[in-house]
Amino acid sequence: MLQTPYYLIDKSALLPNMEKIAWLREQSGAKALLALKCFASWSVFDFMSEYMDGTTSSSLYEVKLGREKFPGETHAYSVAWADHEIDEVLANSDKVIFNTAGQLQRFEGVSRGHTRGIRVNPGVSTSGFDLADPARPFSRLGEHDAADIEPVADLISGFMFHNNCENADFDRFDNMLGSIEQRFGHLIRRMDWISLGGGIHFTGEDYPIHRLAERLKRFAGENEVQVYLEPGEAAITKSTTLEVTVLDTLFNGKNLAIVDSSIEAHMLDLLIYRESAKMAPNEGPEEWMVCGKSCLAGDIFGEYRFPKALNPGDRLSVQDAAGYTMVKKNWFNGVKMPAIAIRELDGSTRLVRDFDYNDFAAALS
Amino acid sequence: MLQTPYYLIDKSALLPNMEKIAWLREQSGAKALLALKCFASWSVFDFMSEYMDGTTSSSLYEVKLGREKFPGETHAYSVAWADHEIDEVLANSDKVIFNTAGQLQRFEGVSRGHTRGIRVNPGVSTSGFDLADPARPFSRLGEHDAADIEPVADLISGFMFHNNCENADFDRFDNMLGSIEQRFGHLIRRMDWISLGGGIHFTGEDYPIHRLAERLKRFAGENEVQVYLEPGEAAITKSTTLEVTVLDTLFNGKNLAIVDSSIEAHMLDLLIYRESAKMAPNEGPEEWMVCGKSCLAGDIFGEYRFPKALNPGDRLSVQDAAGYTMVKKNWFNGVKMPAIAIRELDGSTRLVRDFDYNDFAAALS
Repeated sequence: MLQTPYYLIDKSALLPNMEKIAWLREQSGAKALLALKCFASWSVFDFMSEYMDGTTSSSLYEVKLGREKFPGETHAYSVAWADHEIDEVLANSDKVIFNTAGQLQRFEGVSRGHTRGIRVNPGVSTSGFDLADPARPFSRLGEHDAADIEPVADLISGFMFHNNCENADFDRFDNMLGSIEQRFGHLIRRMDWISLGGGIHFTGEDYPIHRLAERLKRFAGENEVQVYLEPGEAAITKSTTLEVTVLDTLFNGKNLAIVDSSIEAHMLDLLIYRESAKMAPNEGPEEWMVCGKSCLAGDIFGEYRFPKALNPGDRLSVQDAAGYTMVKKNWFNGVKMPAIAIRELDGSTRLVRDFDYNDFAAALS
Repeated sequence: MLQTPYYLIDKSALLPNMEKIAWLREQSGAKALLALKCFASWSVFDFMSEYMDGTTSSSLYEVKLGREKFPGETHAYSVAWADHEIDEVLANSDKVIFNTAGQLQRFEGVSRGHTRGIRVNPGVSTSGFDLADPARPFSRLGEHDAADIEPVADLISGFMFHNNCENADFDRFDNMLGSIEQRFGHLIRRMDWISLGGGIHFTGEDYPIHRLAERLKRFAGENEVQVYLEPGEAAITKSTTLEVTVLDTLFNGKNLAIVDSSIEAHMLDLLIYRESAKMAPNEGPEEWMVCGKSCLAGDIFGEYRFPKALNPGDRLSVQDAAGYTMVKKNWFNGVKMPAIAIRELDGSTRLVRDFDYNDFAAALS
């Protein structure tokens, strides 16, 4: 049994997502690129690449990772490219997407001959969090105004829209796409390809994936463009757990269990968005608050039910721990960084990366 | 000129903090241990160790770092120790501090002969943030009740209290210490040493450090204990900047400048506590919002004034970037991790650590 803490990527849980993506590609004609900002654990990229077309990125390093580890297309997007990195970006990508007309113009000469696009901000989104809302006031994410895009439209062949965020509501997606066509349709029809970004939760249960396929196909046909999707969370949802062990228990008005992990260090979004982790099973007469072991007073995974009282040595599985976790893990408090393990389709588990004291010391200087 | 982004630790800005700490030690008799959870950039530990007595920690890896890199005493505290790490904790520390009586009892046999203490939670604190408040309801941080400590008091020789948090108000500190003495005085007087933790902002301007010295000396004398302080932020405040470069500018209702860094990746507490970075200078007729380059819509350092409009290539210095920054930096979005540089007392600057694509790829698997 592996020593906790570790992230466990279960390929048999990843597979249903991959099969839905493959189905959607086939039915809609859209291509699907993994959004590395959400998940970049490259040991499963070969497996995922059988079902997806490539990767998209938010930085030079993600571009390089996509090119090096994920067979297929490599889209290069960043909120801003630096002068000293643009050559490497172009050398390692199939398309480059600029965040602004200003960036496009800055790199117009050097990127001539490359397939180029620009990010367009339609001013509407589905994010429930202001922090994560690309359409928030004064947003720096993309060009907002068709009049600002028009002058550079001849320099590019595509647009990237990214305004969905864990959107499980197809009708909402459909409406927003309609409004995008209304506002930017005349420009879209001048393009060869359109990325509709990520955040569409089409691998979720009960999502009307048939309607999505039809809508994407119609959008592609009417506008004569190749559609791209950039699933992040949708690609890896429910595929991974964070395996932890109870180290201590105490009662202080509530039953508390301290585990060998930390939300701040290992599941950061729980802290940023003030959410609770999913624990399974979550049934039984015993109520416990599961806490991390960092110094942070609010390092709390959540409160759950268990069949019996927790004790030191008990193992717990934090559910749905693939998205925006490993890509943000850090050495806060020097808490042991979780190893990364993969459960193969045959049920065997192998450790693919572990971290030790030397990694911690080398992260600083 | 070094390529941005990088953290720049300026020894001549660190020096006044060190001198205040040394003065306080001398006047009060208290010992000062650097809290590694706040700052663990070990290239300046030799320098700091001339003014401080050692380190305190929140995990095995911090214990080892303190022992290996910081001459002096090594205190080992953690919210919970694991069975498999306790031997190494003991082998690398001068004192071990348990978070609960339960942990002390669990490791009573193996730690016999070691100098041992327990964390006591006085139930009051100065934190303005519930997240960071060790006295929050149901807090797992330390033993709350003298009656629970009494039965194990003979097994230990010290207590650690940590209930201040960026507390710049001496009278508040004084009052809380008084209430600690009232509640736990009978136990404190049975101990040899008492750590009063960190979070006392005694290196700040106008802090009545003389009164603090007198109070600590009196506390030590009346209770016949060696006092320890565990400064984190107080040790490194205003010593370090995060040096960044503007990559793009745009106007979207406000003037926006995008820099080659990210609060989520490089100054995480700004995001967690929803605060703005300090920028200097911050004067002039031009108002600009300075934004990070991650995909996060809310990746914003803050809004500042500048003497003239910002342009790509401009360098900016984010102030006061030592505490809880480098220890939490992460590879979100694959944004280039800032290098770490040190400005020596003679004004020369040397790079002590850089990070590249290979570090990024190796952080995952």
